[in-house]
Amino acid sequence: MRIEELGEFGLIRRITRSLKADNSVIKGPGDDCAVIKLDRSSYQLLTCDMIVEGVDFKPGDKPYLIGRKALAVSISDIAACAGIPRYCLVSLGIPKYAPVKYIDQICRGIFDLAREFRINVVGGDISRAKQLALDVSMYGVVEKKYLVLRSGAKPGDIIFVSGSLGDSIKGKHLKFTPRIKEARFLVENFKVSAMTDISDGLAQDLRHILEESNAGAVIYADLLPRHKPSTSLESALYAGEDFELLFTMPIKEARKMLASDRDIFHPIGHITEKRRGLRLIDKDLREKTLAPRGYKHF
Amino acid sequence: MRIEELGEFGLIRRITRSLKADNSVIKGPGDDCAVIKLDRSSYQLLTCDMIVEGVDFKPGDKPYLIGRKALAVSISDIAACAGIPRYCLVSLGIPKYAPVKYIDQICRGIFDLAREFRINVVGGDISRAKQLALDVSMYGVVEKKYLVLRSGAKPGDIIFVSGSLGDSIKGKHLKFTPRIKEARFLVENFKVSAMTDISDGLAQDLRHILEESNAGAVIYADLLPRHKPSTSLESALYAGEDFELLFTMPIKEARKMLASDRDIFHPIGHITEKRRGLRLIDKDLREKTLAPRGYKHF
Repeated sequence: MRIEELGEFGLIRRITRSLKADNSVIKGPGDDCAVIKLDRSSYQLLTCDMIVEGVDFKPGDKPYLIGRKALAVSISDIAACAGIPRYCLVSLGIPKYAPVKYIDQICRGIFDLAREFRINVVGGDISRAKQLALDVSMYGVVEKKYLVLRSGAKPGDIIFVSGSLGDSIKGKHLKFTPRIKEARFLVENFKVSAMTDISDGLAQDLRHILEESNAGAVIYADLLPRHKPSTSLESALYAGEDFELLFTMPIKEARKMLASDRDIFHPIGHITEKRRGLRLIDKDLREKTLAPRGYKHF
Repeated sequence: MRIEELGEFGLIRRITRSLKADNSVIKGPGDDCAVIKLDRSSYQLLTCDMIVEGVDFKPGDKPYLIGRKALAVSISDIAACAGIPRYCLVSLGIPKYAPVKYIDQICRGIFDLAREFRINVVGGDISRAKQLALDVSMYGVVEKKYLVLRSGAKPGDIIFVSGSLGDSIKGKHLKFTPRIKEARFLVENFKVSAMTDISDGLAQDLRHILEESNAGAVIYADLLPRHKPSTSLESALYAGEDFELLFTMPIKEARKMLASDRDIFHPIGHITEKRRGLRLIDKDLREKTLAPRGYKHF
């Protein structure tokens, strides 16, 4: 069997199904971060993301933005768990012919964003490679009371996204600011039942919440905050790498939140019983099941 | 300027010179692990290593051993700081055509070694890549009183290596067992002044200790424990990837240690003042300066 037949998520399930962990591990693979006991009041968050030339960025993209993105995607995973990023390691696979200036720019992109988020870059590794590849592993902390996983959504909860969706490929995926501040605002003021970041497209990432929460959902096409008036529904639903927060809240909390003046958060639907699946209501109020697709590596 | 002109270590120095860290960071880049405050009695150790097809392993090598090596090199970094490995993340860059069975074997190599060392594999990432690449980031702990860095060697200290040197390319680099047990035995029973693991060749890694300790050294060709009688002096000095411990001890401690029955540790020379540089005494008692070379990625 080839990987393409299994798909990225099939492969991950297959790889991780045999893994065991000791009781210091609160959450292993299957969420945005791994969650580990730290002390009486807090957990550690661990996550890593590899970005590769020709897949996650184009060879001609600005090296500063490539470095920035490598760090930003990992910070976004910490945001998805409502944590605070603290330390990171950076592994670089570099083609032999790369000019030192190009590497300097990549590092400046990483270090500038690290400084902005007060993250300590504490180490790394360099290897020769045919294709430029960057792997960032990020270490964060979160108060136990603020941790949010993908698994807490309940029927009746309202589904929200931050910012806007779609057309990320036109540049946003290289320049987005991870939603740490917004995630912290949410957990410090409201009860958030489930959260993730949109890295594979709204439909796919919502599906991850539904799988982990054992639930279904209905979302409304007209409620999706599109990046531009010209952004297609297709792109808003399926384009990966928006790196926005996707989260759910009990309706009471949702009302309180909407009464605050944060117009960055948009309600897009609600959680249902699992048997209803993931359904979209279009502008003519027709309901249909959303196809399980989005960005896949294989 | 191209990377080749600067060299791997020149590039690392260039990249990391501008880095700043807050006071929770005891040691940033420049040692085997980053060292971070954890609690009153212990530190956290962070390290990552990327291995790439065609560089760190051959396309025809057994996938089980490739996976095993990816984890082993990171465990070896924890051993070099006398710590205990606890959690890891694994990023895989996988060619599209790779059979699922091949990936299964890689993962089995990782998971089996993780189990042996009681390491929790808590997450990872998968990306498509032209070349197989594995990046493991490892999180360990070490009691404050047991932490050993590269920087503590003093003139008069005796230099030791564990096991044997050279000919790693003939297979050992894919099958070695990281020296966690041995490193722990050392720090729990003796005072170790500096330590690293041999990943770039004895001469190069000893040079790293000398740079961080601001010292020189004399080593004796006849004292080097060669892998086989046929192993050349060249290979014992310069071949990378022995993944043995290289460490120094005050002479009193060294005598105590040698009196214990651990014949795995071999004295190979002693630390001197910095101005003497790194010198080798050959079998005819001629002294010469050791050339600064060893494995380099660029």
